[in-house]
Amino acid sequence: MTTGQELRIGIIGYGAMGKAHSYGYKVAPLIESLPVTPRVTVISGRNAEAVARAAHDYGIPAWTTEWRELIERDDVDVVDICTPPGTHAEIAAAAAAAGKAVFCEKPLSTNLSDAKTALAAVTAADVKNAVGFNYRRLPAVALMQRMISEGAIGKVLLWRAIWLSDEFADPTTPYDWRFDASMGGSTIADLGCHLIDMALWMAGPVTEVCAQSTTFTTERSSGVGQNPVTVDDSSQALMRFESGARGSLEVGRVSMRRPCDFTVEVNGTRGTLVFDYSRLNELQFGSADDDVTLYGMRTIRTEHPTHPYAANWWAIGQGVGYGSSFANQVADLLRGWPEEKWQPSFAHAVKVQAVADAMERSAFADAWIAIDRVDR
Amino acid sequence: MTTGQELRIGIIGYGAMGKAHSYGYKVAPLIESLPVTPRVTVISGRNAEAVARAAHDYGIPAWTTEWRELIERDDVDVVDICTPPGTHAEIAAAAAAAGKAVFCEKPLSTNLSDAKTALAAVTAADVKNAVGFNYRRLPAVALMQRMISEGAIGKVLLWRAIWLSDEFADPTTPYDWRFDASMGGSTIADLGCHLIDMALWMAGPVTEVCAQSTTFTTERSSGVGQNPVTVDDSSQALMRFESGARGSLEVGRVSMRRPCDFTVEVNGTRGTLVFDYSRLNELQFGSADDDVTLYGMRTIRTEHPTHPYAANWWAIGQGVGYGSSFANQVADLLRGWPEEKWQPSFAHAVKVQAVADAMERSAFADAWIAIDRVDR
Amino acid sequence: MTTGQELRIGIIGYGAMGKAHSYGYKVAPLIESLPVTPRVTVISGRNAEAVARAAHDYGIPAWTTEWRELIERDDVDVVDICTPPGTHAEIAAAAAAAGKAVFCEKPLSTNLSDAKTALAAVTAADVKNAVGFNYRRLPAVALMQRMISEGAIGKVLLWRAIWLSDEFADPTTPYDWRFDASMGGSTIADLGCHLIDMALWMAGPVTEVCAQSTTFTTERSSGVGQNPVTVDDSSQALMRFESGARGSLEVGRVSMRRPCDFTVEVNGTRGTLVFDYSRLNELQFGSADDDVTLYGMRTIRTEHPTHPYAANWWAIGQGVGYGSSFANQVADLLRGWPEEKWQPSFAHAVKVQAVADAMERSAFADAWIAIDRVDR
Amino acid sequence: MTTGQELRIGIIGYGAMGKAHSYGYKVAPLIESLPVTPRVTVISGRNAEAVARAAHDYGIPAWTTEWRELIERDDVDVVDICTPPGTHAEIAAAAAAAGKAVFCEKPLSTNLSDAKTALAAVTAADVKNAVGFNYRRLPAVALMQRMISEGAIGKVLLWRAIWLSDEFADPTTPYDWRFDASMGGSTIADLGCHLIDMALWMAGPVTEVCAQSTTFTTERSSGVGQNPVTVDDSSQALMRFESGARGSLEVGRVSMRRPCDFTVEVNGTRGTLVFDYSRLNELQFGSADDDVTLYGMRTIRTEHPTHPYAANWWAIGQGVGYGSSFANQVADLLRGWPEEKWQPSFAHAVKVQAVADAMERSAFADAWIAIDRVDR
Repeated sequence: MTTGQELRIGIIGYGAMGKAHSYGYKVAPLIESLPVTPRVTVISGRNAEAVARAAHDYGIPAWTTEWRELIERDDVDVVDICTPPGTHAEIAAAAAAAGKAVFCEKPLSTNLSDAKTALAAVTAADVKNAVGFNYRRLPAVALMQRMISEGAIGKVLLWRAIWLSDEFADPTTPYDWRFDASMGGSTIADLGCHLIDMALWMAGPVTEVCAQSTTFTTERSSGVGQNPVTVDDSSQALMRFESGARGSLEVGRVSMRRPCDFTVEVNGTRGTLVFDYSRLNELQFGSADDDVTLYGMRTIRTEHPTHPYAANWWAIGQGVGYGSSFANQVADLLRGWPEEKWQPSFAHAVKVQAVADAMERSAFADAWIAIDRVDR
Repeated sequence: MTTGQELRIGIIGYGAMGKAHSYGYKVAPLIESLPVTPRVTVISGRNAEAVARAAHDYGIPAWTTEWRELIERDDVDVVDICTPPGTHAEIAAAAAAAGKAVFCEKPLSTNLSDAKTALAAVTAADVKNAVGFNYRRLPAVALMQRMISEGAIGKVLLWRAIWLSDEFADPTTPYDWRFDASMGGSTIADLGCHLIDMALWMAGPVTEVCAQSTTFTTERSSGVGQNPVTVDDSSQALMRFESGARGSLEVGRVSMRRPCDFTVEVNGTRGTLVFDYSRLNELQFGSADDDVTLYGMRTIRTEHPTHPYAANWWAIGQGVGYGSSFANQVADLLRGWPEEKWQPSFAHAVKVQAVADAMERSAFADAWIAIDRVDR
Repeated sequence: MTTGQELRIGIIGYGAMGKAHSYGYKVAPLIESLPVTPRVTVISGRNAEAVARAAHDYGIPAWTTEWRELIERDDVDVVDICTPPGTHAEIAAAAAAAGKAVFCEKPLSTNLSDAKTALAAVTAADVKNAVGFNYRRLPAVALMQRMISEGAIGKVLLWRAIWLSDEFADPTTPYDWRFDASMGGSTIADLGCHLIDMALWMAGPVTEVCAQSTTFTTERSSGVGQNPVTVDDSSQALMRFESGARGSLEVGRVSMRRPCDFTVEVNGTRGTLVFDYSRLNELQFGSADDDVTLYGMRTIRTEHPTHPYAANWWAIGQGVGYGSSFANQVADLLRGWPEEKWQPSFAHAVKVQAVADAMERSAFADAWIAIDRVDR
Repeated sequence: MTTGQELRIGIIGYGAMGKAHSYGYKVAPLIESLPVTPRVTVISGRNAEAVARAAHDYGIPAWTTEWRELIERDDVDVVDICTPPGTHAEIAAAAAAAGKAVFCEKPLSTNLSDAKTALAAVTAADVKNAVGFNYRRLPAVALMQRMISEGAIGKVLLWRAIWLSDEFADPTTPYDWRFDASMGGSTIADLGCHLIDMALWMAGPVTEVCAQSTTFTTERSSGVGQNPVTVDDSSQALMRFESGARGSLEVGRVSMRRPCDFTVEVNGTRGTLVFDYSRLNELQFGSADDDVTLYGMRTIRTEHPTHPYAANWWAIGQGVGYGSSFANQVADLLRGWPEEKWQPSFAHAVKVQAVADAMERSAFADAWIAIDRVDR
């Protein structure tokens, strides 16, 4: 059950992700008996008042405005990076250099080069490392991947995903760092990386992509002036997998009254699986092995005790939400502590970033782009 | 923001409800800045090994096998009762007598008489008291009630609710206390009380009911022998409201492949609202005030910052689960601390129990039964 | 395939039902090779201009304003009654007396006594007779009944149906015959009879009912004055089946933005079936025999060639509508021509009416009412 | 209302489309008063026995095995072409040369060159001409286009469509003409042309496309040997519109347990519209003009009398099916008879084919392909 041992976490960034990660550390032990108990000892942020308030609300005993100070603290075993994407790689490298385990929010960086630098740093320091592709920790997504890997739909033929929000739909939304590709990452990198993570996890390496990207609102006011928007409002991509499967991916932030809707569908030689994030406790499954008199798909209620994570949560039918992915993420990382390597690692995140990078270049070049063999 | 003051909780019962309540106390402060921080100081249960494990997993520093001891502890301000329904009233009365605030899981008891005894105890002791009708803390349910109270659907004409599970569907499921009405309460009392709570909250007092109850599997094996099942597998009821509105209610535990599905629909003179628990972040709304060229219902994504609870949780589109109702419940109780009275109180729970009691008697008598005027 | 023989139909009533029946006669032969080709030879209605226009639009060569004349015509083999319910029994009796086959829209009458008179007439004349419970001819409803009869859900335990529209929701809707129970029938008789037909068909005889009925708008303007409304706006009923199964039924016409929505759900010892009319090409099926790792329900796309009616319509996935029920109805009646008896017969319609009648009396009496053994 | 005048139709092809068109001619006059009554006078097909049976079942007085004979008949005003795509252009040209109006099933041909030949023929003969893009006659699709054209969603930014079936999913399905691109057309041409029609209709001319196509089962048995499959099992395409809007399109026939599912979504500056063919009487609409407290989309029940076609069909809530598109198509063609030109014309169908052709070439070339300015 437990040794009473604690794993001490320092979280850098107190915003939405800092809150979600705090939730994960609080809830994980309640949901699952873990070999080590996570305890967030310190949180950092640039605004003293705000970080102090967050520390109180999240139940964290200490705070600082200096992330480098946090990294160096003796009571920090794991550095958890929840800052904007453009800062991830530098912080990760510093944390690794300090010998700390590094858990970094997605995307690992806003460009492939920085991602590789971060990977090199954790590799050199030989520290545990992982990236927060939390959506794969949703029970239904995890079940989808498990069913595919167990052959429930045969060989994968087609993989498709669409992620729509209206976050950028209003042209009068003021400029902030999310509209700066070097800080927030492109929409391909920021939203798309979750989908690419799932694509690689479910259907294997991607060899070639062809994409188009558009920015409908090309500049936005920051109050004092107009700033150019360097992030795509919308991108669509075609994909080819090493296995011969084909795919497509769309990400967009200008789809009015789509708050944060994504769907992932996989068609295999023997069946179909469909996940719709707006129905996150369900998975659609159609099987060629089913009697044709029952032609159609099943709605699997992904809360049966046999399903990933489900036995540890509520009784079937009750439903979990987005937050569960963060608690499950913590449980996944700590379940095998200290022996097991963390997944998905920085090395995996570099592969994800390589696909995103190829899509960005393809959109720029108006041509198919191959992913370098070493990056697959 | 905060005074740093703590409110110390003792939880009696470490099962599913003890876990859910623990979740609520952990998460509430993260979600909302509260005037007082809840801290669970002790948990009790009859099985020492199990309660010790729960204490560890839930992050509770102390445990005991004696609930009376828990009530008497100096470091317990609030007694939170998570035991089987048949034990609620006695524990609540004892806690009140000890001058502790009492928060009791639903139903307040398994019969109207015990519920009244519990109410008398908290009234005599003048302690804060509330009953855990947590489903009304789901954002969509709270929004539904708010919209009704604000007149969005005009005057309520019809109210209906159906709750279906398959918990009792398998005749070989062994006998346990859930099948004993004196301990677990009837299905009307146990599941139905949530729906009756919503009915009273949304549509006002109920004056008359007519119900039928059935037990399809009349005895079950407890390993050593056959025990009679004294709980209804399924009940249906007609309802009349003081306002002139009409209603119906069904609860059942023998609906195969219905894990825990309930729907509540209200039809008013100007509109319709429908909640489906399997889509718990949505609310259907049809309004007679909408242009007929748009005839139909809207799916309100009940995560907009203007919606109940939503501003404190995740960004719109992400979704919360069942657990959120427990965190919201804690926030609701503590938001006005220490001035405000808790809602829904034991007094309200007695009204709920009076309706359940009338349904039970109606099913026995095969006749319409009026709810006593004093109990409405 | 065909003999070229024709069956000549006279339709009484040119309104919505006259149109739907005309559709049925036109389309049935296209969908299915029948032993006899239906041809509508004449249509009647009281308004000469309107019936003449209908005759042209529906492609019917003759019309008359006298239904008795229609019945007597030599070129009418089948009298198809599409007039308001209050006139059905008299017309049916006259048609039977003239030796014609009688096909009557539902309900057979607005009261049990008239229904029995109509039955006596067709029995005495020994003519083919049927009542237009067309919803049971929808592929998904027919499949639902077939699956139940084949044991797919085991023994039926619970049956429930809810039919909601907003036809009467606006208090300013002028008075017409639909608000007169003696002409249009109660809402229980008019809408409810479809559901009762399905209840009897799927779950067998009903022995007892308990109902409540309400009329929220008690009088309506007919232009020249206020007329009392003698029809229920809404009714709810509890039901007991001879088999031991329990049921509930609701019908209402004051549910805003519910155009004509009904659901029927049956829970059996081994499974659940759910039909939702707003998804009329689908049937939900949950089976206890399915692997629990796939816990949930399937959406059967009820257009597979093995499904009722489906082989004769479009390719799977295309979907049929309401109209299909009328074409299927004609095909069902004529498929076995001339040997086979028509189903559902007047005798069955009397059983349906007996349940509706008991519900009406129960609502009046505020008590459970048994259906007479001879009427089950 | 009517003149009694008849328009005489000759249908070439008695298969699924011949049946659907026959349905359309039978039902249209029932649904809507038209200035001219269509009457199918003759049907042709190569198999005498089969075409004779079809003639009987469809209620058509004459049949022939020679399509050229049908074209020449004096009692044929309109030639309706329901043969495999590879034969369309030749038949259309012959019918035009005979001075007959030509109504041709989609796609107009299997390649752009033949489509242009057919267009030239009807232009030279100055005969009425139209192509059967029937899905745009579904009420919800027509409403979607109308709302877009009326500005309900502002300026179109993104358009996407996905069509999935499992028609080709089984590798053991024997070879027939559908697997021969020169006879059945590519999947892009055959299924995609419906979607391209909608894209042009809703979002205007397409300027550039980039596509990939795959055939997973590259040969199939015809009984006597293996035949190469020259049709794509699946294709995905990126699209750019002249307006600046972006789009994507996927068509596939290897998506197991997807019978014939397609969705079309349009995102504009002020709103979103989504059509799902499996819910063909609904349209999802999200508007930025709606109060944010109602954030989400509405389900428009596309059967209100104000909606396209709806006033002529059944009462709201009843639902129409696939067949309705064929009756509506006939009504659309004949409503303005004889003055109005038919829509969508061969000229429009050539524009559709030009996009399909560009997608096919793009998939072959692995590059973006521009649509010739003259073909847009």
